[in-house]
Amino acid sequence: MEPQALNELKEKIAEVIDVVHAISVLEWDQQTYMPPLGGEARAEQIATLSKIAHEMFTSPQVGKLIHELEPYFQGQSPDSDDAAFFRKVKREYEKDTKLSPDLVSRISRTTSLARDKWVEARKESNFSLFAPYLSQIVDLMIEKAESLGYQESIYDALVDDYEPGMKTSRIKAIFEELREGLVPIVRGIKESGVEIRRDFLSRKFDLDRQFQFTLKILEKMGYDFQRGRQDKTAHPFTVSFSVNDVRVTNRFKDTLLTSSIFSALHEGGHALYDQGIPEKFDRTLLMRGASYGVHESQSRTWENLVGRSLAFWTYWFAILKEFFPQELHDVSLEEFYRAVNFVEPSPIRVEADEVTYNLHTLLRFELEVGLIERKIKVEELPGLWNSKMKEYIGYEPKNDAEGVLQDVHWSDGYFGYFPSYTIGNLFSVQFFRKALEDIPDLYEQFARGEYSPLREWMRKKIHVHGGKYFPEELVQMVCGEPLDPQPFLNYLREKYRGIYGNL
Amino acid sequence: MEPQALNELKEKIAEVIDVVHAISVLEWDQQTYMPPLGGEARAEQIATLSKIAHEMFTSPQVGKLIHELEPYFQGQSPDSDDAAFFRKVKREYEKDTKLSPDLVSRISRTTSLARDKWVEARKESNFSLFAPYLSQIVDLMIEKAESLGYQESIYDALVDDYEPGMKTSRIKAIFEELREGLVPIVRGIKESGVEIRRDFLSRKFDLDRQFQFTLKILEKMGYDFQRGRQDKTAHPFTVSFSVNDVRVTNRFKDTLLTSSIFSALHEGGHALYDQGIPEKFDRTLLMRGASYGVHESQSRTWENLVGRSLAFWTYWFAILKEFFPQELHDVSLEEFYRAVNFVEPSPIRVEADEVTYNLHTLLRFELEVGLIERKIKVEELPGLWNSKMKEYIGYEPKNDAEGVLQDVHWSDGYFGYFPSYTIGNLFSVQFFRKALEDIPDLYEQFARGEYSPLREWMRKKIHVHGGKYFPEELVQMVCGEPLDPQPFLNYLREKYRGIYGNL
Repeated sequence: MEPQALNELKEKIAEVIDVVHAISVLEWDQQTYMPPLGGEARAEQIATLSKIAHEMFTSPQVGKLIHELEPYFQGQSPDSDDAAFFRKVKREYEKDTKLSPDLVSRISRTTSLARDKWVEARKESNFSLFAPYLSQIVDLMIEKAESLGYQESIYDALVDDYEPGMKTSRIKAIFEELREGLVPIVRGIKESGVEIRRDFLSRKFDLDRQFQFTLKILEKMGYDFQRGRQDKTAHPFTVSFSVNDVRVTNRFKDTLLTSSIFSALHEGGHALYDQGIPEKFDRTLLMRGASYGVHESQSRTWENLVGRSLAFWTYWFAILKEFFPQELHDVSLEEFYRAVNFVEPSPIRVEADEVTYNLHTLLRFELEVGLIERKIKVEELPGLWNSKMKEYIGYEPKNDAEGVLQDVHWSDGYFGYFPSYTIGNLFSVQFFRKALEDIPDLYEQFARGEYSPLREWMRKKIHVHGGKYFPEELVQMVCGEPLDPQPFLNYLREKYRGIYGNL
Repeated sequence: MEPQALNELKEKIAEVIDVVHAISVLEWDQQTYMPPLGGEARAEQIATLSKIAHEMFTSPQVGKLIHELEPYFQGQSPDSDDAAFFRKVKREYEKDTKLSPDLVSRISRTTSLARDKWVEARKESNFSLFAPYLSQIVDLMIEKAESLGYQESIYDALVDDYEPGMKTSRIKAIFEELREGLVPIVRGIKESGVEIRRDFLSRKFDLDRQFQFTLKILEKMGYDFQRGRQDKTAHPFTVSFSVNDVRVTNRFKDTLLTSSIFSALHEGGHALYDQGIPEKFDRTLLMRGASYGVHESQSRTWENLVGRSLAFWTYWFAILKEFFPQELHDVSLEEFYRAVNFVEPSPIRVEADEVTYNLHTLLRFELEVGLIERKIKVEELPGLWNSKMKEYIGYEPKNDAEGVLQDVHWSDGYFGYFPSYTIGNLFSVQFFRKALEDIPDLYEQFARGEYSPLREWMRKKIHVHGGKYFPEELVQMVCGEPLDPQPFLNYLREKYRGIYGNL
């Protein structure tokens, strides 16, 4: 029989999660429908609920329940849902109680000011406007990391929020291996001299038809509209208010057809993960997935491994042409496929192709580690950014807006997040390769518009566990191997050989 | 100088209101965009936040601050904003501390689930599906009323949430006077033999054009879209998350053109009130208006006194014809005006004409009082509803959907609310008569599409006070008289004499 303290702890945590989800609804509304002057009151509402959630979670009562339950769980199998729940609660509680309310509130106040300054600085493409705020944030992140504690690298303490258990040294090694593999691929593509036609991508595509097309894709992927919906926003995201209410957002510009399509696939991938988590985990800390990296593996699977495959477009291109008969009348399937897989050195991470993408995150990782280890000064960032861009990607940013000011993460205090993007890319190929072993005709299925075998495989192997395991435990369980960049590099070589010839 | 305790009390209350507004956002989302299966988690979120808001507001700390401030406010003018704020906080605190957190959360959870059941029951026109939930709600309402306490009638305790200071006995007397006046008017109209053409009202009107037309009306009324927006819902309502974020909702059916138009005027009237409340009252208990009845007076002013006047259509009918040239090609202004003022016994309150409307609320008032006084059982409701409908209005509902299941209120636990609709109708004419004294050419202005003088009069006389006064104090201040059904009856007689001849 479950001890009473466990029921109490579950109820407490469920209520914390209710508050956190209420914050998510407020944020979703802010990014989709809120009228222009609603922002000030919304900021107060979010600040108040954040304070309440933090106070509820770090309350002495939660600490007492954890303490009471320790002996009980020492006698339980560590694989049970309850044990995983308890581990997760204990871990988060110990982390959160190490941060003083004063530090939490200073971080919140500083980042909320910094965000506005970042918007302004980016608009004016002037890093010096943002620099003093970023300096404060770096100091706060160091204070946070020192409060949390670490064994090897101070940056470990920050990464842990996004990739539980992951170490800086391991990320460094992975990036090193990845970079070594990527350099010759990028060079090979550059030297191939292959020309790819892309003129038709920037023709005018009706916004409403784009919206309808993305709905069709989401539906076919198996995104459940009884438990979700798609709305318009400025910067697409997915948000879960419960496993039965997982919403995607998308952005529509008439000259950016493929942006809305790949966003739908990307956010749809996140959403399938959140919708695929068993209902029993709802209102627990296990409903979130294993890590930001594992989450990203799901979005990248659908965006890239599925959505940028020739098999995918073998099915969809004819439908797309029905939506845009005039706009695509002179384009062949093969041309379209090549256009959406065009590789080039470019300044903006979120618009980068599959090949160069991880060099963008590598650059950010190196700069973040340098800042947090106090080896780099904030004032040096623009110069370092630009020289690393030139070195890794072969592109020189024209200004701060397309360089060091492009990402919102630092202004929000999200230090330690960027590695998850690359970890997600690597996981995605590791999982997909395993899925291909189990379902050898996956690509034939894609060519017929069939995704349920892939989706159900992901559900059974990954989604079903919710947040029970650390990311590297999960990849070990599913693939029988640790995080590894080689499958990703092999995937790139094979795929881009088909487009650019011998690499 | 303000005592420190006052600042502390204001900050505490502001945070409570942040939580209450978060609940409102969750509810707005539930009624506009939430996917079908999101309801269960949403009910939990709302229940948790309701509990938190209640705990925060009824905390001993708030009690202590109120106690500390008593002597200070005995020396202050009772008319100051701070004094009104303090009175309101003290009054609500004394009421709310009588309700246990457990009761509050049971009400919230039960009503949240009951709402979905009500939707289902109404769709199937089957009261028995909803009855068990309604029984629970009635029990909870009685528990609530008993906890709050009362002097004369148990129903007083519930009415007070909507009309502070109003007594059941007074409502009974007002309804009696009103009914006596209405009976001969209804009879006169029935016996007049006047035929009113209405065929064109149920032609097909494009939904998107309806939406655009209602936006045009809202804009012209002076509704501020920088601080609000219109969305689609099943049952139109207005909600305020701050004086700078006041949203209206509307419903569009192709054969119900006038429904969306009058809803826009109605909700627009509520919204002008909420947008007209001074920003200084934001995040205080004074930002809500004087009562539900006073709020309804504003919506009914725009819906009926303005929107169903010949002067209003003198301006708008030509524009409406531009939106629907084909659909209205054979209709004259006079015919349209008469059609939107057609009086007949009909089943649905929200679609009832101005004359019979208050007989619908009377019926509900009597049933509610009976339920709360345990003189009526839930199972008896459909039968009682239908026999009262026949007696008061001369219409026999064909089924539960157009009878006892038509209103959402009971499923939401809004017992004591219905009288406010009638009080609002009476107030609206009292206020409007006064406005006409101050601005004699109001109708000439309407015929030119000018509303700012009326809007600014309402703002100066009513909105500016927020929730500082009791409803009957306010009508006394503005009109120099108490709540009175006679002006309303006189308005009806005069107006409908113009349409139906001598009454």
